[in-house]
Amino acid sequence: MVKRVFHGDIVFTSHMGGFDIYEDSYILVEDGIVVKITKNLEESDKGYELVDYRGKLIIPGFSDIHLHAPQYPNRGLGMDKELIPWLNTYTFPEEAKFSDLEYSRDVYKKLIRDLWREGTTRSVVFSSVHLNSTKLLMDMFIESGLGAYVGKVNMDRNSSDKLNESTEKSIRDTEALLQEYVNKSYLVKPIITPRFLPTCTDKLLHELAGLAVDYNVPIQSHLNENTSEVNWIKELYPDSTSYSGVYNDFGLFGQKKTIMAHCVYNKDEEIELMAKNGVYAAHCPHSNFNLSSGMMPVRKFIEKGVNIGLGSDISGGHTLRIPDVIIGAIHQSKMNWLLSNKELKPLSTAEAFYMATKGGGSFFGKVGSFEEGYEFDALVIDVEDLMVGKTLTIEEKLQKYLYIGSKDNIIQRYVKGLKIEEPS
Amino acid sequence: MVKRVFHGDIVFTSHMGGFDIYEDSYILVEDGIVVKITKNLEESDKGYELVDYRGKLIIPGFSDIHLHAPQYPNRGLGMDKELIPWLNTYTFPEEAKFSDLEYSRDVYKKLIRDLWREGTTRSVVFSSVHLNSTKLLMDMFIESGLGAYVGKVNMDRNSSDKLNESTEKSIRDTEALLQEYVNKSYLVKPIITPRFLPTCTDKLLHELAGLAVDYNVPIQSHLNENTSEVNWIKELYPDSTSYSGVYNDFGLFGQKKTIMAHCVYNKDEEIELMAKNGVYAAHCPHSNFNLSSGMMPVRKFIEKGVNIGLGSDISGGHTLRIPDVIIGAIHQSKMNWLLSNKELKPLSTAEAFYMATKGGGSFFGKVGSFEEGYEFDALVIDVEDLMVGKTLTIEEKLQKYLYIGSKDNIIQRYVKGLKIEEPS
Repeated sequence: MVKRVFHGDIVFTSHMGGFDIYEDSYILVEDGIVVKITKNLEESDKGYELVDYRGKLIIPGFSDIHLHAPQYPNRGLGMDKELIPWLNTYTFPEEAKFSDLEYSRDVYKKLIRDLWREGTTRSVVFSSVHLNSTKLLMDMFIESGLGAYVGKVNMDRNSSDKLNESTEKSIRDTEALLQEYVNKSYLVKPIITPRFLPTCTDKLLHELAGLAVDYNVPIQSHLNENTSEVNWIKELYPDSTSYSGVYNDFGLFGQKKTIMAHCVYNKDEEIELMAKNGVYAAHCPHSNFNLSSGMMPVRKFIEKGVNIGLGSDISGGHTLRIPDVIIGAIHQSKMNWLLSNKELKPLSTAEAFYMATKGGGSFFGKVGSFEEGYEFDALVIDVEDLMVGKTLTIEEKLQKYLYIGSKDNIIQRYVKGLKIEEPS
Repeated sequence: MVKRVFHGDIVFTSHMGGFDIYEDSYILVEDGIVVKITKNLEESDKGYELVDYRGKLIIPGFSDIHLHAPQYPNRGLGMDKELIPWLNTYTFPEEAKFSDLEYSRDVYKKLIRDLWREGTTRSVVFSSVHLNSTKLLMDMFIESGLGAYVGKVNMDRNSSDKLNESTEKSIRDTEALLQEYVNKSYLVKPIITPRFLPTCTDKLLHELAGLAVDYNVPIQSHLNENTSEVNWIKELYPDSTSYSGVYNDFGLFGQKKTIMAHCVYNKDEEIELMAKNGVYAAHCPHSNFNLSSGMMPVRKFIEKGVNIGLGSDISGGHTLRIPDVIIGAIHQSKMNWLLSNKELKPLSTAEAFYMATKGGGSFFGKVGSFEEGYEFDALVIDVEDLMVGKTLTIEEKLQKYLYIGSKDNIIQRYVKGLKIEEPS
């Protein structure tokens, strides 16, 4: 058994609303699992190897629960369009290139390196429609030591000629991926990934829901991102009461653990259905801003008890850095507060930090916190070069890192107790 | 005469609305002033020293036309409050420390270093109320080689006990600064700086307007940032038709070149008065988000012909990096587009880039563009490490730098033709 004790200024959020702060304390970890936090080591703690991060912050690693790996080359480009034209002009042509494994390897190498650099220890990822490229991405994640759910995208209608799959091939390739990867790795697992309703036939949606049950794997898709998209859903499913209702009817809305990205235009009944079914919302504020989609009223989701994590949504979002996404979420919530006559309270820093750690991390299990029994995913942060003039409290140091820090402030990354080196 | 020719991919915005792009071209500079741009050097251009930045972008340096130097230690802190409580809790106590010259030197050294790092070649700065600390800041700017307008803040009511000045001292210290600095440096000059109406008595405002005329110096202040502040103005000046109208009545609204920061809640007549009087709006989107102030309808200002530059508004804003402010401005304009029933068109990247260069730069004179006769303020940008997968056009390379680049992508900075080294 590997027993280590990490010494530093420990900060996390066991609940939404405030920070758990243990200044100059020790966190004991056995085989990657947190045992306890203590201010002073006792005689019985002597069997632990000491890892000294005194004066540094020790915080949970970040979970990014919505991003598109093959859109990485487009990051920061084409931000003058809305969702549907942007998909057709920028996204689909780029994703078509991922039939080429060498191109895929080149791009995914840089993506995984940059996730590592920015402290994202767990990701929930859309790949492209391509089976082999998706397998490559999963193998590269396994090699990196970072955690991930990765989904082969399904779309058998309304995409580009180069990406459209037959229904049969889409199902066959998905099942092949499940068979090979469902038990291959503890940290990297497959996830069922219908792109969104407009690109999937009824037959495909039905079959994917069946595969999720048969292989006991989770589901991810998009929901209520943009008004044009929402209107399109009404045209495609005139008899349905809501976008969420269609997913639910197909068994793709919490029947297995599910993430729905965006949720900008959810009706109240849809928010309630998410809470009831335990469906996660992936809140992607920068993408919502960039694609002029709108502002997710995140406070409503919190009040109704929906699980919420944050997503970079590369490349609708431009930044991989989850602290930037935290700030975007706070900004969006502040504007919603103003627009709602101050009924929807803005997110505090602690609330948004919770979403980026335990909120999204809980999709992976006991991840994103330092409570007893949690997997020790951690970042060690040195904010020395961010301090100007006055001395700061532990919470202020964390705020500095979140608001004005960078990858350069992260001096070490751990996943389930293992130190992760920069992917080569 | 110093004659240099810079070779690279030249990008700037001579007008609002589109990029001027000269791929693999030459820009000829004499004694810091742009002479011409050419695709091929001619026989008559042989007398110029060649500076080779082939494959790199050459863009104008950024102008930050609204920031508070003594708030630099608070950057990224206290973002859970609105304007007035934030001023009282965080800002005024910090600014009070700048009676101490050693503390001032320590903070201003890091501020100027970071402005240099992020490529801000010109700044319009609020100092504190303290005369000696303001002189120190100006001397440090002069030493750095960067350009700046710096104002000693005036407030003789409604601030904290430690900061409140007598009316007489406020005027006397301001005039002392003007006398010493009005002709001391070409690049660093004083600016009249009443903090905002609530902190200045009528007598002080009247005298400051007189000093602006007597010494022929510009003016800066705050305008319509937050609804509580706007309501306070109505209480303080019940007979006035608008916040802008009060400044105008005192001769502080374009009688000399003037910048007003924020302008979130301007009435149409106030926007028209700004256009008529040539008053600049300093648009500070991140500050507006952070302090829950609101969203400036920037398109209205453009349509009415107001001069607009961008401001980091440290420390209401958290980031010094002007490309981040560009993105914030675009985000805010996209949300205004949605909220206005798509009447207020979002900012394009080129429009926001214009504001950050020629828009704000024009406050300094012929600054922020590479047209003939402009001062050569330039950044040399290498985006190699931002490129993943596909090849990019010059405009796409600039987009990458703006959206996902950092200070590390800036390999050289020039102000009026002189290469500026990192301040020591």
